[in-house]
Amino acid sequence: MYLVRFISRKTERPENGELRGEVILTPRGEVPLSQVRLLAPCTPTKILCVGRNYVAHAQELGNEVPTRPLLFFKPPSSVIGPEEEIVLPPSSLVHYEAELAVVIGRRCRNVPAAEAMDVILGYTCLNDISDREEQKWEKNWVRAKGFDTAAPIGPVIVTRDEIDGPFHIMLRVNGETKQDGSTRDLIFPIPVLIEEISSYMTLEPGDVIATGTPAGVGPLFAGDIVEVEIDGIGILQNPVR
Amino acid sequence: MYLVRFISRKTERPENGELRGEVILTPRGEVPLSQVRLLAPCTPTKILCVGRNYVAHAQELGNEVPTRPLLFFKPPSSVIGPEEEIVLPPSSLVHYEAELAVVIGRRCRNVPAAEAMDVILGYTCLNDISDREEQKWEKNWVRAKGFDTAAPIGPVIVTRDEIDGPFHIMLRVNGETKQDGSTRDLIFPIPVLIEEISSYMTLEPGDVIATGTPAGVGPLFAGDIVEVEIDGIGILQNPVR
Repeated sequence: MYLVRFISRKTERPENGELRGEVILTPRGEVPLSQVRLLAPCTPTKILCVGRNYVAHAQELGNEVPTRPLLFFKPPSSVIGPEEEIVLPPSSLVHYEAELAVVIGRRCRNVPAAEAMDVILGYTCLNDISDREEQKWEKNWVRAKGFDTAAPIGPVIVTRDEIDGPFHIMLRVNGETKQDGSTRDLIFPIPVLIEEISSYMTLEPGDVIATGTPAGVGPLFAGDIVEVEIDGIGILQNPVR
Repeated sequence: MYLVRFISRKTERPENGELRGEVILTPRGEVPLSQVRLLAPCTPTKILCVGRNYVAHAQELGNEVPTRPLLFFKPPSSVIGPEEEIVLPPSSLVHYEAELAVVIGRRCRNVPAAEAMDVILGYTCLNDISDREEQKWEKNWVRAKGFDTAAPIGPVIVTRDEIDGPFHIMLRVNGETKQDGSTRDLIFPIPVLIEEISSYMTLEPGDVIATGTPAGVGPLFAGDIVEVEIDGIGILQNPVR
């Protein structure tokens, strides 16, 4: 299934549905995709991000490969949907970071890696927009990673029965490919991340784990169009202001 | 007003009300305080905490006084209410940290310090439970500060018309006073914190800003009873398991 969240001209409130081709199935009937604006496909109570989870990316920023997952939070207020504007903070250097996002399907705690796939609802794209100027000095990356519009998510959640990895991740700026990687190269694979995180905290339905970015990160400028594409999921496109 | 959130035996679902002495006024009528279990008085979408915001506390842990607020997040899943158990993580050293918590009253962004008091709904107590073992090695304090039960909040939100600071903060373990400070000594006062945070991100109603802890932090052990008391607000008491 391809799960979406959207606002239609008719109701002007968020609705959930299942995308089938060009129509969305909802409890109130079919809605043409052309008549809605897609929102981020989930409403996380928290977003757990994993830093330096691809060897080549850790190296390109001159960082060591971590021995345990490097975790940080993005707040719900940073989430935007497909086609929504990324508003650059007043910074000399803001980077894109294409990531596979895991969406949690049920409330869980202390999930062993061997059972971790069972708590996953599905997968979507996330762009971990990062203010490198703030990131240099901040102890916790609240300003660097948590500003409004720093977490574009979407366009759909693809459930596990459709596709279950490994995932091919690409990122383009103005049509030019900048990142091209595979979740085969994750240092800490998804079940290990879920085991680790859930050993500390309860995960809720809709919560997101952003699994890290492959090599090729780089700057965004006002006027750019940035696209995260993951095979089998789709394209998350956002203009930059 | 003294705002509470609670579960009563009768309805078994969370309700909001106004505490007046020993009764709670609700839309469905009066409910005796004795017949409810108080919950954390707000349901934040995010909790912003401020580290090292009292000179004496920064010094007791051997840290420099920051030149800008040191911010970090606690997730909603870490919140517990009055009398709920703090469940210690498997760590050799877990500390209490008594703090004044500011509860946001309305959605806001880019609030100047001069207008910042207007976005405050009221005040409550927060105990910033901290795993020092994890905090030593983590880049972002996700495990150290974000585990389940790491954010006791309550017992009530006192609105600004009742009391508007400065606040006298105390913490007791098993009846013995361990912390005794005043928000007069905040390095970054509340309006400055709101201006700083809201310059990066939208604050939502119910969001919490934990303003930092005075000197006197120390360990918690299973079987302890820990109390945060703030004059004019009340006592947030939690047993430790």
